[in-house]
Amino acid sequence: MTILNLSGIVFGLVGIVFTIFLTFKVLENSPGNEKMQKISGAIQTGARAFLISEYKILYVIVGIIFILLGLTNGWMMALAFFLGATLSVLSGFFGMSIATKTNTRTAQGAIHSLSNGLKIAFNGGAIMGMTVASLGLFGLGLVFYLTNGDTISMSGYAMGASLVALFARVGGGIFTKAADVGADLVGKTEAGIPEDDPRNPAVIADNVGDNVGDVAGMGADLYESFVGSIFSASALGVILFSEKGATFPFIVVSIGIISAIIGILVFNFNLKDKENVDPSKALHFGMYIANILTLIGVFFLSLIFLKTLKPFYVIFLGMVVGMLIGSITEYYTAKEPVKHLAKSAVSGAAPLLINGMAVGMESTAIPVILISLATIVSYNLLGLFGIALAGVGMLATLGITLAIDAYGPIADNAGGIAQMAELEPYVRERTDALDAVGNTTAAIGKGFAIGSAALTALALFASYTKVVNLEIIDLAKSQVFIGALVGGMLPFLFSSMAMKAVGDAAEIMVEEVRRQFREIVGLMEGKADPDYSSCVAIATKGALKKMVLPSLLAVFMPIIMFFILGKEAVAGMLVGTTVSGVMLAIFMANSGGAWDNAKKYIETGEFGGKGSFAHKAAVIGDTVGDPFKDTAGPAINILIKLMSIVSIVVIPILIKIFQ
Amino acid sequence: MTILNLSGIVFGLVGIVFTIFLTFKVLENSPGNEKMQKISGAIQTGARAFLISEYKILYVIVGIIFILLGLTNGWMMALAFFLGATLSVLSGFFGMSIATKTNTRTAQGAIHSLSNGLKIAFNGGAIMGMTVASLGLFGLGLVFYLTNGDTISMSGYAMGASLVALFARVGGGIFTKAADVGADLVGKTEAGIPEDDPRNPAVIADNVGDNVGDVAGMGADLYESFVGSIFSASALGVILFSEKGATFPFIVVSIGIISAIIGILVFNFNLKDKENVDPSKALHFGMYIANILTLIGVFFLSLIFLKTLKPFYVIFLGMVVGMLIGSITEYYTAKEPVKHLAKSAVSGAAPLLINGMAVGMESTAIPVILISLATIVSYNLLGLFGIALAGVGMLATLGITLAIDAYGPIADNAGGIAQMAELEPYVRERTDALDAVGNTTAAIGKGFAIGSAALTALALFASYTKVVNLEIIDLAKSQVFIGALVGGMLPFLFSSMAMKAVGDAAEIMVEEVRRQFREIVGLMEGKADPDYSSCVAIATKGALKKMVLPSLLAVFMPIIMFFILGKEAVAGMLVGTTVSGVMLAIFMANSGGAWDNAKKYIETGEFGGKGSFAHKAAVIGDTVGDPFKDTAGPAINILIKLMSIVSIVVIPILIKIFQ
Repeated sequence: MTILNLSGIVFGLVGIVFTIFLTFKVLENSPGNEKMQKISGAIQTGARAFLISEYKILYVIVGIIFILLGLTNGWMMALAFFLGATLSVLSGFFGMSIATKTNTRTAQGAIHSLSNGLKIAFNGGAIMGMTVASLGLFGLGLVFYLTNGDTISMSGYAMGASLVALFARVGGGIFTKAADVGADLVGKTEAGIPEDDPRNPAVIADNVGDNVGDVAGMGADLYESFVGSIFSASALGVILFSEKGATFPFIVVSIGIISAIIGILVFNFNLKDKENVDPSKALHFGMYIANILTLIGVFFLSLIFLKTLKPFYVIFLGMVVGMLIGSITEYYTAKEPVKHLAKSAVSGAAPLLINGMAVGMESTAIPVILISLATIVSYNLLGLFGIALAGVGMLATLGITLAIDAYGPIADNAGGIAQMAELEPYVRERTDALDAVGNTTAAIGKGFAIGSAALTALALFASYTKVVNLEIIDLAKSQVFIGALVGGMLPFLFSSMAMKAVGDAAEIMVEEVRRQFREIVGLMEGKADPDYSSCVAIATKGALKKMVLPSLLAVFMPIIMFFILGKEAVAGMLVGTTVSGVMLAIFMANSGGAWDNAKKYIETGEFGGKGSFAHKAAVIGDTVGDPFKDTAGPAINILIKLMSIVSIVVIPILIKIFQ
Repeated sequence: MTILNLSGIVFGLVGIVFTIFLTFKVLENSPGNEKMQKISGAIQTGARAFLISEYKILYVIVGIIFILLGLTNGWMMALAFFLGATLSVLSGFFGMSIATKTNTRTAQGAIHSLSNGLKIAFNGGAIMGMTVASLGLFGLGLVFYLTNGDTISMSGYAMGASLVALFARVGGGIFTKAADVGADLVGKTEAGIPEDDPRNPAVIADNVGDNVGDVAGMGADLYESFVGSIFSASALGVILFSEKGATFPFIVVSIGIISAIIGILVFNFNLKDKENVDPSKALHFGMYIANILTLIGVFFLSLIFLKTLKPFYVIFLGMVVGMLIGSITEYYTAKEPVKHLAKSAVSGAAPLLINGMAVGMESTAIPVILISLATIVSYNLLGLFGIALAGVGMLATLGITLAIDAYGPIADNAGGIAQMAELEPYVRERTDALDAVGNTTAAIGKGFAIGSAALTALALFASYTKVVNLEIIDLAKSQVFIGALVGGMLPFLFSSMAMKAVGDAAEIMVEEVRRQFREIVGLMEGKADPDYSSCVAIATKGALKKMVLPSLLAVFMPIIMFFILGKEAVAGMLVGTTVSGVMLAIFMANSGGAWDNAKKYIETGEFGGKGSFAHKAAVIGDTVGDPFKDTAGPAINILIKLMSIVSIVVIPILIKIFQ
């Protein structure tokens, strides 16, 4: 044990201290007038209430698993599991609380200038990003240090992170899209009132959804990815470089955290006392700084610590591939294909939907080839450790990439508040501009997330084969093939459950919104207030009721498969789930993104603009895309990894007990 | 070589003779009045013209492959390939020609009585079914006999069948859905005229599409499945039971053909001189007779010829699993889920689309479990031969199951002719009743098709590993994993191409139909005729231009993968394609089916009936489902098998040349 084994704890704490400092800076800004604060308060109350109800259900399951793990595999691993889950919950809750406090401050800041709004929104996102990265590194670093790099305990930590992530993504995803679909269907399509109109009874639920789904859900998601990639790299690194290999990923991520802090500071310094800035340039600049600094750090680290530049090459490759996947994602969801897609809306909703699905399906091709390329090259350089390390490379600067991701919903919410609080139209224009930039820059973050998910899944699969002593997983055996077939089916079944939950909850929401428009006298004239809370309650109920079953699917399927067809079939199942899951996740995310932007493109006045036949078709496309891109799609990435981690943790225990 | 090796040739010829007899019987019926004949003639001309253009392109590719195979692997295999392709083309062309002659006779028959219409439509379908089964058995039997059971030559035959099938499915599927979507979008949605209204310029193209897609395409598809399953069973049977094992599948299918003939005769006998019958009962009865007779025959064959009942068990299991998958398919596309789906149309197109995709995704679960069950049990009984044989069991009575499948589009077309020729409304009601029954009974046929595709794909995969001498396909190797990942992507890319082709061609069609409504004076008042031929030309052009690339994908991907990552990666790729392809195919087919029937359910008067808000939403759902269920979905099954057969045929040649 060298002092370097403390790096996770130390730099995790550095990140935490910086986050607290940043939080105070952000909260210094004015939260705006009374009406804005009232609206923001309502969003906050709804979001917190939902998260607390969600955590209550979650902790029943966490508690059961904690006890089972403790009894069968010792309490150290059980504690690691509990810590992994709890730090995820904390980072989601804290990050989201700050985000809900930042949105009104962003709206207020945008009154003064675009750059002011940009700075506040970005820093709000940075708090989320840094919280997730710091707590993730700190927690896993703590387990690593205390257990002397025990892989089993770390896998428990990763399992806790994955379990919370799946619940948060599924629950938050159902909530946000039930509210969004419900609000849009009646508000925009039937009543013809604009987005975020305070007369829409579902408008608060919609904004709450942005926070619990897009902020808290995404935070838990990336916490999971981050932890999963470090864990798998550390577990595989020890095989190749013994102790140094196990420590290496922690140091890489520590460099990433410091680089992210510098990137965030540079961003803020650049904006100081400036009235007008190009938000896209500013965001990109901060991110590039962080990535370049990380690469420089990793270069010297590889050379000095591991005496080879191969880890540097692999991490560099991971970053490049992540950025390329991001560019492809951006191309399919924001460039030519979207314009072509928007044109098909002129022929109606059906061609738009058909073509949108075609775009999403096509968009799987190049990312898969890039991932394959990254896999081959890094495998040839450093074996399985290389594959895991490429995944770490994609997430090393998470503190700032997630900042840019989380900045989007904050700007979106700020726009909602500006609208509802009836601020001057130019404020909304500014927040819209901020939001638009966020959508594009977020594409790179998505690229990192997709790429790292696939590589981490592969690394976790390899770890599974090691912990259950499988030298060979022979596809020519019928049980392995069947495992792959059943595994391939699971992402479809899982998506079906998630989408049905959104569809069902949205239907109840639509009825409720219609009822309020019908029954509350003076609502459309703005003389009476709608009942926001009943819509929040519908989304909450729908989400909580429907999130449990799909999440348990991930936990139980590896166990069931093990009992029926054995450990080799479980390996087949993990591959099947990865293969069909990666495709389905990319397809759903990008179809949804393309529809969203096709609608936005039409709203700029193309093909008849707002209110035209094409626009109506585009609204349908956007609505269908909502559960694609924000509920089922992103959750599949977690499903894949959670199944792998459950297999790593549970199957060895079952083998011990039953064989 | 025993006399039994001739069984394929002999019983194939018996089937052909019976088919010719049946054809004369069907053509004896009156083709109806002059107007009906004129319409039927227009459909026939369009359909034949399309097929001939399609075959011209196809034969360029067939010719190139023929020469390449001949030069590298001997002319016997090349000839087998050519024969496999040509008999497929012939059966598609002949079957479709009869179908287009039967539709007007069905409409005419329905004037007299429901049972009359039923008989003619069924016999028309039976001609298709018997043509496909007889020519398939005869051709493969001929190759088997001439080459003394040479697996390589038979694989050439199967490759010819698969290649044609993919072209026919993709080309026909694009044609039919471009026409259908185009006709519906403007006709039903914008102009508000009913289905099959002669004022709709795309109406002839729509009816041509039913024939080239649903009849000729489906015929080639099942010819391929039939040939593929017999080939793989024969190739694997020889390993277990030597010569007898190779012959066994041919005899099973011969029994199936005789049983189908008896089933068809019993059906006709039952309807003799009856005015009113329950069409569903009559169709089911014929099919059950055929299946029971086959089982009895196989029971004695197993006992006497192979001295074990295991093959009987496996075939029995295959039939039961096929029927169960059929029932599940029917449940998801016609029962409770469809009613629930129809209800969501009340909230709009978006919830309907979301829920419809959820239904399709969910519907993958039980079929996959049933297929897994069939695989395990038959593998335990007879090894890989058992898996292939279970697939043969599902298709043994193809002569009659395909009859029921092909009967659907004939009844559908008859309805179109009744409408366009302005026959009395009761005629249309009768043809609609026939069509409705066809949709349900066809579910069982679909179950057989899905089940056998998965099992045959598995058997072909096993054959591939044998011909390239792969004892083990180790998923823990990164190139195998990458093969699986890239393979899993292909069905998505392929579907994307197919759907985009439909979307693009439909858009051009929509513009053309709108133009005609706008520019042809008196069209809507029925005083002027539309220009049908321009719409047929658009669909033809769209289909021919876009069918080549996706089809070549299947041919070239195994070759490319072999050169980059080797033969084990190709095995990984085949598994990846099977895993994601089976799911995608079931998902697309059943989502499409569910939307179709949800629309029909609303049209019975539920949730506001025709013209209501819910109905408009349901029409959008149906339109989106069209390329799902009739273009991309069914073609994926062929893609999976064609890739396997190309690998079986081409990779050993490449190994010989380059290693």
